[in-house]
Amino acid sequence: MRAVRLHEIDRERGPQNFRVEQVDDPQPQPGETLVKIARAAFNRRDVFISQGLYPGIQLPCIPGSDGVGTVAAHGEGARGPAVGTRVVIDPTLGWGPDQRIWLRSAQVLGMPHQGTFAEYIAVPAGNVHPAPASLTDDEAAAIPLAGVTAYRALVSRGGCTKDDVVLIPGVGSGVQTFVLLFAKKIGAKVIVTSSSDEKLERAKSMGADVAINYKTSEKWEKEVAAVDGGPSLVVDSAGGDTFFKAVNVTRYGGRVVVYGGTLGDAKLRPFSLFWKQLDILGTSMGSPRDFAEMLALFDPSTGSGHVIKPAVDKVYAMDEVVAAAESVDKGAQFGKVLLAVT
Amino acid sequence: MRAVRLHEIDRERGPQNFRVEQVDDPQPQPGETLVKIARAAFNRRDVFISQGLYPGIQLPCIPGSDGVGTVAAHGEGARGPAVGTRVVIDPTLGWGPDQRIWLRSAQVLGMPHQGTFAEYIAVPAGNVHPAPASLTDDEAAAIPLAGVTAYRALVSRGGCTKDDVVLIPGVGSGVQTFVLLFAKKIGAKVIVTSSSDEKLERAKSMGADVAINYKTSEKWEKEVAAVDGGPSLVVDSAGGDTFFKAVNVTRYGGRVVVYGGTLGDAKLRPFSLFWKQLDILGTSMGSPRDFAEMLALFDPSTGSGHVIKPAVDKVYAMDEVVAAAESVDKGAQFGKVLLAVT
Repeated sequence: MRAVRLHEIDRERGPQNFRVEQVDDPQPQPGETLVKIARAAFNRRDVFISQGLYPGIQLPCIPGSDGVGTVAAHGEGARGPAVGTRVVIDPTLGWGPDQRIWLRSAQVLGMPHQGTFAEYIAVPAGNVHPAPASLTDDEAAAIPLAGVTAYRALVSRGGCTKDDVVLIPGVGSGVQTFVLLFAKKIGAKVIVTSSSDEKLERAKSMGADVAINYKTSEKWEKEVAAVDGGPSLVVDSAGGDTFFKAVNVTRYGGRVVVYGGTLGDAKLRPFSLFWKQLDILGTSMGSPRDFAEMLALFDPSTGSGHVIKPAVDKVYAMDEVVAAAESVDKGAQFGKVLLAVT
Repeated sequence: MRAVRLHEIDRERGPQNFRVEQVDDPQPQPGETLVKIARAAFNRRDVFISQGLYPGIQLPCIPGSDGVGTVAAHGEGARGPAVGTRVVIDPTLGWGPDQRIWLRSAQVLGMPHQGTFAEYIAVPAGNVHPAPASLTDDEAAAIPLAGVTAYRALVSRGGCTKDDVVLIPGVGSGVQTFVLLFAKKIGAKVIVTSSSDEKLERAKSMGADVAINYKTSEKWEKEVAAVDGGPSLVVDSAGGDTFFKAVNVTRYGGRVVVYGGTLGDAKLRPFSLFWKQLDILGTSMGSPRDFAEMLALFDPSTGSGHVIKPAVDKVYAMDEVVAAAESVDKGAQFGKVLLAVT
């Protein structure tokens, strides 16, 4: 089969290390399902691996955590959707029995386990779910890792309800666009910020109630605090000064969920935390239960009735994998960057 | 009646501003119970008020949040323990219906509402609870504000169970000694730290399993991390560098509860928070439910069977109020500083 592989990794060349090659087809082991991939999607994780910025890298590897395709075969004893079913793959392997935290041995698909940037992939049958009927292959492929991360952050950890005012700083990344979609599906009010008016406009078209440009609006946190007394729930992946300001504007009894820290260390003022009795909640990836609950949100008949469609930035051919990875590295995209595998 | 009053406040003189005077007896209003105070206890809040380091100070005032005594009379329609019953007073007024957060209008007894440093006090009947039969007046008077703060931090917010390993940095303050007592009552394993070997010895005599001197043991966080893989629950009131190190040693899926920040702003590393999926939970004071559940822990028949006795540092006569306040200001005490009112 054709697959994207990394043989070398380094900070300098990064995305240019990806190459398309011919490799042996995987065989489904007992309990596994073989999926023929139609579309795969990029996550920053794939780019970090190409740059050597990820722990425990094993080479060569086939990256990719997100994929949609059809069931091609089942290994011995594997129970899952019938051959030919259109499916999405849960990218978390071996989460374990505790909803609160994964086992230390848990993995994300795509290094060391073979990833989705390949024509075929064999995964545990339990990781294979029928794709939401309301979505195209492109839309469904955009879901897995970003979707489950967003769902766990917003709902399982953040406890979002229709009564919340949700602040999403830095809308535009794959995860943050899913946070926006899910919050609107649940019926919450949503405030987004970005440095790009174009991204703010797209966020508004996806349902954002208030959109603030933090570059041109110097005191963005004052504008945020003025919306219904400020957010009751923040979902942040920036850290740094953004986190500090977000904590300041969060309402009494509010929650601040953190799944990343691109701006690095943050200052935390204990008084803001204890006086307002805030919850600051860390999260990463999601459990099998999170994944199943998240997929259910794409059923048009649930929640607020909003029909939600994942944001797709662009679909690249498999041979354009370097260009696709470079666009993710630049971070200028809105929504997910896809790879057309077959 | 005789009462301690503040007419002036300033950073310099602080505790020396307290004086004992003759004032009119309070009269119980409809719904209120009049309590004849036997013992009152100091909190840092009382000293902060004398130093002008508290928001919204109204003068003159009678400070004091903690008191034990006997029911002297009931106002019209007040339902509470019968006249003559030995009672402790819940110091939180007007918490409101939400367990998660108090109403913005909630107050703590002792400025602006008359406090417990007086022979009589009238409070809402619902704030008056029978004193635990297993405790002396001195022990019971030590409970209210520190006890409810500790209970909410450890149990209502921290969710402490017998399976937890609890880290209590800086044991010695009123609240931290209650956290220690309650954690042992629940059956958890407890690690305490202090800069004083004397305080560590007292903590061990109260049940602490591991005691570490953070002054003489340079890498105290390494010693903490070595205990059963590190704490699953931290209750911190320091902030600053202590908070940062405590977050570093907390186990995957653990909780860090914060009710103070004497060392000021802390650094928070987003990666530690999201990768370990920590909960960082702010808390202050406690709800009426917290107070009632906390008192029940003093029933010797509950929990691990540990008989718990609040730590009393010293009992001062009412006329020695300045010396008592100065000792709280120095922070050298272990457990509560009391005032013998009648």
